[in-house]
Amino acid sequence: MAEFTLHEDPRSGNCYKIKLTAALLGLPLGVQQYDIMKGETRTPEFLAKVNGNGRIPVLQIADGDTARFLPESNAACWYLASGSPLIPQDRFAQADMLRWMFFEQYNHEPNVATLRFWLHFVGEANLSEQQKAQMMAKRIAGCEALKLMDRHLEAHDWFVGEGATLADIALYAYTHVAEEGGFGLADYPAIQRWIARVAGLPGYAPMA
Amino acid sequence: MAEFTLHEDPRSGNCYKIKLTAALLGLPLGVQQYDIMKGETRTPEFLAKVNGNGRIPVLQIADGDTARFLPESNAACWYLASGSPLIPQDRFAQADMLRWMFFEQYNHEPNVATLRFWLHFVGEANLSEQQKAQMMAKRIAGCEALKLMDRHLEAHDWFVGEGATLADIALYAYTHVAEEGGFGLADYPAIQRWIARVAGLPGYAPMA
Repeated sequence: MAEFTLHEDPRSGNCYKIKLTAALLGLPLGVQQYDIMKGETRTPEFLAKVNGNGRIPVLQIADGDTARFLPESNAACWYLASGSPLIPQDRFAQADMLRWMFFEQYNHEPNVATLRFWLHFVGEANLSEQQKAQMMAKRIAGCEALKLMDRHLEAHDWFVGEGATLADIALYAYTHVAEEGGFGLADYPAIQRWIARVAGLPGYAPMA
Repeated sequence: MAEFTLHEDPRSGNCYKIKLTAALLGLPLGVQQYDIMKGETRTPEFLAKVNGNGRIPVLQIADGDTARFLPESNAACWYLASGSPLIPQDRFAQADMLRWMFFEQYNHEPNVATLRFWLHFVGEANLSEQQKAQMMAKRIAGCEALKLMDRHLEAHDWFVGEGATLADIALYAYTHVAEEGGFGLADYPAIQRWIARVAGLPGYAPMA
């Protein structure tokens, strides 16, 4: 039986995705915490052993004497959920779930999560001029991502198929705290109903 | 037997990933071309029928009377390669392949591909002040992504396991034309050797 340890910063929605996946599956998950604001994931030891990309989350998988490290939140969720109902088996549904997970990393996270990090944790007064210059573009792109999600959820309870999948977990992580980045969820009623559905899943665990 | 049509702009590396996957698998793939510089993927018809996100590529899958649309390049590659040797069956290897594909969309494409688009197709003189302000950060982040790839490829012929997978295809698309974005590949000898390996795969098709 493999043992799982999550290298994480509890403020990160990307880390929370993995914890929520493990919670919904009833899998025990150890944690090792880092403070990304203090550069703790850029130390030579972290870069050499855990992730050369200097980022968390990383899922550590211990199997007997072997320890393997898996960066990228959505890949770690995939590993944990392998063979479970959180990954549909149908060929199109499986690809469509990955479609929403790639959308999350490309169109959602760099806007919705980055503005939350800048405004809620760094503080607007501490942003560089270059960061301030990007805020409006990220606000617009983040709203577009939320609008696309809301339109989809007007007609569907879940992103793919008839139940929760990793697509819902991946998109839930930063969406349910989007107001910390200044995105008012009142404009997205279908998203609000979906957030309540995710929070009502058996085994659901809230973000720290 | 499903029939595949790719909605694409031939200048896009994201579209090329899907064409390369189909070529390596020997799958016939029709194409419908759009000019993204002229906003042809933002028309009401495209948004309603093909992709509400207004982006290409989109893989159209016709099966009898049904046509389904799959956006996101890496999800389309996953669909096409389902059950083939381009996706490893081992649980860790499969997740590790997805890890590199998420890395590609998050750390590589927004830097390496965006600078290529700005410099090679839009032209530096035509960039907005906001785009110009982002160039240095994208240059640095793109070099970091290439450096991480090069370090991995110093010790491995392929990103995952002992043969080509979708991770190689996803990362090859914009890496092999990175010089069009001003990234000198002479600094990355292991990447150069890997590019030659990909180009030597049976069935390989070059970018248009």
